[in-house]
Order: sequence, then C-alpha cells, then structure tokens
Amino acid sequence: MTKKILLLGAGRSAAALINYLLENAPAEGWAITIGDVQVEHLQTTVAPLPFARAMVLEVQQPEQLAVEVGKADVVISLLPAAFHEVVAKECLRQGKHLLTASYVSPEIQSLHEEALQKNMLILMESGLDPGLDHMSAMAALQQIRQKGGRLLSFKSFTGGLVAPESDNNPWHYKFTWNPRNVVLAGQGTARYIQNGEYKYIPYHQLFRRTERVEVAGYGTFEGYANRDSLSYRKLYNLQDIPTMLRGTLRREGYCAAWHVFVQLGMTDDSYQLDNTTNLTNRSFLESFLPPAAATGAGLPQRLSWYLGIPEDGEIMQKLAWLELFEDKPIALPNATPAQVLEQLLKEKWRLAPGDKDMIVLQHQFVYEMAGEQHELTSSLVVTGEDEVQTAMAKTVGLPIGIVAKLLLQGKITKRGVAIPVDQELYEPVLAELKQYGINFTEI
Amino acid sequence: MTKKILLLGAGRSAAALINYLLENAPAEGWAITIGDVQVEHLQTTVAPLPFARAMVLEVQQPEQLAVEVGKADVVISLLPAAFHEVVAKECLRQGKHLLTASYVSPEIQSLHEEALQKNMLILMESGLDPGLDHMSAMAALQQIRQKGGRLLSFKSFTGGLVAPESDNNPWHYKFTWNPRNVVLAGQGTARYIQNGEYKYIPYHQLFRRTERVEVAGYGTFEGYANRDSLSYRKLYNLQDIPTMLRGTLRREGYCAAWHVFVQLGMTDDSYQLDNTTNLTNRSFLESFLPPAAATGAGLPQRLSWYLGIPEDGEIMQKLAWLELFEDKPIALPNATPAQVLEQLLKEKWRLAPGDKDMIVLQHQFVYEMAGEQHELTSSLVVTGEDEVQTAMAKTVGLPIGIVAKLLLQGKITKRGVAIPVDQELYEPVLAELKQYGINFTEI
Repeated sequence: MTKKILLLGAGRSAAALINYLLENAPAEGWAITIGDVQVEHLQTTVAPLPFARAMVLEVQQPEQLAVEVGKADVVISLLPAAFHEVVAKECLRQGKHLLTASYVSPEIQSLHEEALQKNMLILMESGLDPGLDHMSAMAALQQIRQKGGRLLSFKSFTGGLVAPESDNNPWHYKFTWNPRNVVLAGQGTARYIQNGEYKYIPYHQLFRRTERVEVAGYGTFEGYANRDSLSYRKLYNLQDIPTMLRGTLRREGYCAAWHVFVQLGMTDDSYQLDNTTNLTNRSFLESFLPPAAATGAGLPQRLSWYLGIPEDGEIMQKLAWLELFEDKPIALPNATPAQVLEQLLKEKWRLAPGDKDMIVLQHQFVYEMAGEQHELTSSLVVTGEDEVQTAMAKTVGLPIGIVAKLLLQGKITKRGVAIPVDQELYEPVLAELKQYGINFTEI
Repeated sequence: MTKKILLLGAGRSAAALINYLLENAPAEGWAITIGDVQVEHLQTTVAPLPFARAMVLEVQQPEQLAVEVGKADVVISLLPAAFHEVVAKECLRQGKHLLTASYVSPEIQSLHEEALQKNMLILMESGLDPGLDHMSAMAALQQIRQKGGRLLSFKSFTGGLVAPESDNNPWHYKFTWNPRNVVLAGQGTARYIQNGEYKYIPYHQLFRRTERVEVAGYGTFEGYANRDSLSYRKLYNLQDIPTMLRGTLRREGYCAAWHVFVQLGMTDDSYQLDNTTNLTNRSFLESFLPPAAATGAGLPQRLSWYLGIPEDGEIMQKLAWLELFEDKPIALPNATPAQVLEQLLKEKWRLAPGDKDMIVLQHQFVYEMAGEQHELTSSLVVTGEDEVQTAMAKTVGLPIGIVAKLLLQGKITKRGVAIPVDQELYEPVLAELKQYGINFTEI
C-alpha cells in the first residue's frame, strides 16, 4: 500500500530532505507531495517522477490544508515555527502524524493529551539544533550511564558556519540560515547552571561571555550561551547535574565584534527608526552614538572611544569591511534597527556560488566514576557540497527524513508531543546518518 | 448649588490634593468623596467635615463605580494608570469630566471623539511630570514666540529627589514615589533629536549617556533621557525644532552606579529567578557574574573586573552601602530580578520620619532672534514639609486640584481627550501655584 508524505516548506533548508524523500520513495512505496507558497524551482526535479508532485499551498487557507493533510499518512513541516500551531491542529483533527524541526512551544505542548488519545505522534525538535544535538547527547549519556558514570557537567555547542575553504572574510561567517534569526539571536536572558549556581546573562552581555571551544582538526571556536539551558535537564534526565550549558558556536573574534552591534542597539527589532528614507550605513551608526562634540574626531574614532574598542584592532577592521563607516544608502523605509542591520549584512555575508558551509557540534561531558573524574568529548563536523546542498540543509533534513521512514515502517511507538530523546528514535537515526557522513568523533 | 467631586485614589501622592480640595470646599460649595481600597487613614481628617466623606471603593466593581461616578460633577483619578481605561469609560458613559496625572494611552486617546460629542473633558498628564512640565514649558514658549524668537533647542529635565537637609546616603536618593517605577525607569529605547539628527539610546546604555544640569543654589545634577522626547514636538507645536530632549534628574554619581544594576541585568522584570528561597544579596549578585575562576578574587573584586569599575571608587562605595556584597537573606519567592532589587532598595532608600523630599524641574531653551542666539533657563525647586506632605504630592496634586476648581467654575472650555498645553489652562494654574510656593525662576 502506498504511504503518503506531505512536506510543507520547500525553501533552502528543505533541499536535502527533498532529495532523501525522493531517493527513498520507490523502495519504500511512498507518494510525496511538497507544498509551499513558491515551488517553481522544484518542477524540473519533481515533474518526471510519477510518485512526487509539488504544489502551491498556502497554510493560511484552511480548506486546502485540510484536503492535503487528509490525504497524507505523515506530515513534515519545515515552515517557519509560527505556522506550526495551525498545522499541528489540523493534523490532530485528522489524526495524522507530524514531524518538525522547531522548538516545542507552549501551544504545541498543550496538544499532548489529545495527540496521545488519537494515537498520534507530534515529534518536534528533530532537525539539527534542536534535533541531532538531542539524539547524539542521549546516545552519549546512555553510554556513560551504562558504565555507571554520574554526570557532573554537560556543555553542548552547535554552530552553522562557513567551511575553511570558503572562508574569505574577516568575520569568518556567512549566512547559511535565516539571516533574520542570526541578527536576533540570543535576545532575552540566557540561563544556565554552573557548579550548582544558577547564572543569568542579559542579552547586552551575552556576546562578551563566550567560552573557547577546540575541535580537533578544525581549530578554535567560541560559544555563547543559548537562552535556555535549564529545561533540558529534565528532558535529558539530568535534573541534579551541577553544570549544564547549551550554546552557539562562532569562529574566534566574531562575538566581540557582534557585541558592538548589540551595545549600540542595532539588533533591536522592537521599534521603527524615524526618517529612514535617506539612511546610509554611516548615518545608521551615527544615530546610536552620542552627539559629536567639537573634537573633530572621525566617526570610527568616536565609535572606538564610546565602546572602548582599540582603534586599529580586529573589531574595527571587521566593521570597516562591512562598510559601516561609509555613506552607502540603505533603501529600507520604516525599518527597525534589526531590519537595517540584516539588510546591510545580507549583501556581505552571502554564500557565493560554490561556497561550502560547515556544521560544527560538540558535546562536552564530565562524569565521575569509581571516585575518578572523566571527560568525554563528542564532536561532529559536516561540510556542505555547495551553496544549495548545504551541510545545514543536510543536518536539518536528514534526521527528520529518517524519522519519517521509521515511522511509516511502524518502528516508532512513541506518541503524543515529543522530542527525539528515546532510544527507539535516536539509535536508528544516528545509525543511518553515518551512511551520509554524519558521524560523531569521540575523544 | 453644590458641586460634587469624586477623587479616586487616596495613597501617598494624594495627600496635598486632598488638603487642597478640603480647604477650598467650603468657599467653592463642593462636596468631596474620596474612594480607594483603603481609606482608614483619612477618617480622622474627613469625619468631622460635613462636606467630605471617605469610602472603600473598588474600581473593579462596576456597579459601585457607576453609582459614585453618577453622583459626581468631576472625577479625579490618582489611581495607577492601569485603572484609567475603566474609569474613563464609565465617566464617558455618564458624561462626567475626568482629570488624571497619567500619560495619554492609546486606549484613552481613542475616546476623544466620543468625549467631544458628549461635551466632556478627559484631561490627562496634569500632575508634575507629565503636567506641570507641559504647563511651564508652554508658558515659556509663548513668551519666546511673542517676542519673535525661533526655537533651536529645548531640553527639559525633572527629578523627584531628596532635599539636601535629608540627604544622608551616598546615592543622594530616596524613594519619594513608587519604588517599582524607579527600578524599571528607562526600559525600552530612548529617542530624541539633536541638531537635526535622530538619536536612539538602548536601555543598557541609558545611564552612561547623562548630561550635567546646574540649578542655581542647588548644585549639579545629571539627567538621563526619557523614553520619548519626540512626540512632544507636535504637542508643543515645535515640529521643526532641531534639538529636543526630555529627561529625568538625579544627583551626580547616581546614574553611573545605577548603570551597574542595568549592566548586570538586575532590573529585568521579564522572567523569574530560579530557586530564590535561599537567595541573599550576595548570591543575587553572584548569579549575574561569570563563574568564579580559581583566582581567589573576592566578590567585589570580581564585579569590579567584570564591569571595569575602580575597586575603591564611589560606585563600589554606593554598592557596599546597600550591603550588596553581604549574605543578607532576601525572602521573596518566585521573584523577578527587578522585584528582588526593589526589595533590597526599599529598606535602604526609605524616606524616614521628618525627611524632606525635593522636586527639581528645569527647562533649557535656545532660540534665535534677529540673527542672534539667546538662552532661557527656567527652573523650579520645591521642597517637601515632611515624609507625608511631600513636594512630590504637592506638585502632582495641586495642578490637578486647581484645574478641577477652574473647571467647576466654568472657566475651562477645552473638551475631548487633552493635556494642559492651552493657555486657558496653564495660565491660571501657574498663577495660583505661586501662592503655594511653586514658582519658576528664569535666567
């Protein structure tokens, strides 16, 4: 009997998942429907295949969504997280399984009991981060627990970066993911626990509170804390762990320079700037600086004084490379500071044709066993093929594709609202990922 | 015919207004009703007076509010701003004038047309700041305009402070107003315009971006920018003014020390701290600092390193005076950082019996006339009588009391939702205020 998969979302991050679904469809007996507001780019791939179709689908149109969900056995959504409530409710109404790569929101969590009653799985956080990080952490924790280790510290960092061979700018960063999310990253207060003490980092200090992270063969990175490191203690069954921190990786030097934008207020998305029609990079910067006194000091100098940045150091070089001090027009009416900054960065941090991205994930465990302290570091580095078949798309899409396969094969018994921390999920997913070069190294 | 006034709100800030109403009632033929959730403290004053009564009144109980509003000719509300929508709607329904000292909210503004149709005045922003600042600014602007001056710059600062004779702590500050508002003051982004350039100050920079303000005979203060300096350009008819800034005054040194709390994240009211049952001042501070390395450095030293504060300077002395480094318990379950900080400060910054507060207001105008640049500085200092009859209560309450009198005398023609920027309002109010020693000095 043909199994039907409905994939919602055909954007950049769906490329590897679409490949996976189409490759596995003949053997698994799948029919694939891919729906998004824009699907033209898929037609040449999908049109020749009898078992696949791409269609314009507007999630906001309830009738169309209901019809397509009704035809499916499993729904996968890579749409922006804001759409997941409406999709999940439709899946719930029709009793269809749903898989996504997004965080469990309170709205989604509230569907748990009803999903259980309908014998239906709503599996969230099944991409890269969150997703692969959960699965690989659970596998390593299982290993430590089996030999009788007691966890003292668990730190975990993930970054979507540019591969060394395509790294040709002083920030050592390019956008491999939604630029808006990168600009707004970290807003709110980061919470974690260190040696039993709760720690809180307000957003305006976040990018100066980094940790060095070494990845063998790939050099040094720096990690800044994610907003919530505490709620995972329960999910990972680590309620009493004295140290737990989840963070995001960047190349060394990035965070100190990004901290300048945060300090200035350039990442604020809560209000619109006045009079932005004649805005330039230079006047954008000027609007966050104290008024120029009659010192005759130039704009870079005034910035360096205001924030205490060395005038000829690496931070200033990074800012200059972005043309932040130039009178370059920014045509963006009624924009928030964050929207202006995103516009400015998008041009500079674009992944060029042929550019390769790189995913880096590292778990650092400290545990006690027979009175002795041990360390285990588990690292993953995945490099993309080019600017379309990215490591980001691969690591987000493949875990979710493999879960879909296992689910349709009847190998997953989990039901309700869940994340992939159960052995029946993470073990086969991690095993199959190795075939795709997604392989953790433990030291 | 007896005129009836309903005053809602009998708290600390109502003391001077209640005195004013009771003093004027016999001559003006007023009957006064004072309603609040707690009015016992008024009984000895009010009971002997045939024309006044105090009653327990719960604004959330619509029937009771409707009955009392129904009996009144004018309603005055000194309740917290959150209650004004329900009060204003009841006044509107029954066609009764309303006077408050709070900012015009969008909800209140939306009642304008209906209030006009019912020939009814909803006069907001009629206390000190906002209120007296509008009135005195309009009077001074009128004077400059009459002689043909063109405004180049208008800066205006107000502060509720402690009088020099009661100033006995290193912060030179005590709470003379709602402590919660002081802790949360300035959150959001401050906007102003300087020499035609829009300027934005994010909250985490606000308390280091101060201006020195001199008040003859009272020494030096520092002013930090209020959230919105721009919307008043239209209300004051100063649309094209190149420089406009409204701010809040503190004594010199306060802002640099307060900046420490902001930098640490202690004024955040958006989340609850974990595990606050055993919290002490010291552990509260510790939770915002990076984990202690094995340096053996003490807590004050680590704070000084983290924020770059001189270890033996005035800022550290102010913090030590608050016992911030002590293991003093804070019994406050499920509290936000801002609530903990408020609790800590409330004990230290309490106005003691006999303590006098002080209101300082200064307008700084620069204008051009006949090709020459002129300056006009208009300052007000009001000192309280004691910790009950405060300068704050006087300057908040008297303007609103005088407006009530003028309104009941039929001398105010303004209708709809308004603030006191019309001559028929500010001129007689400022004139009568002089009898109470509220007198601006111009230089």
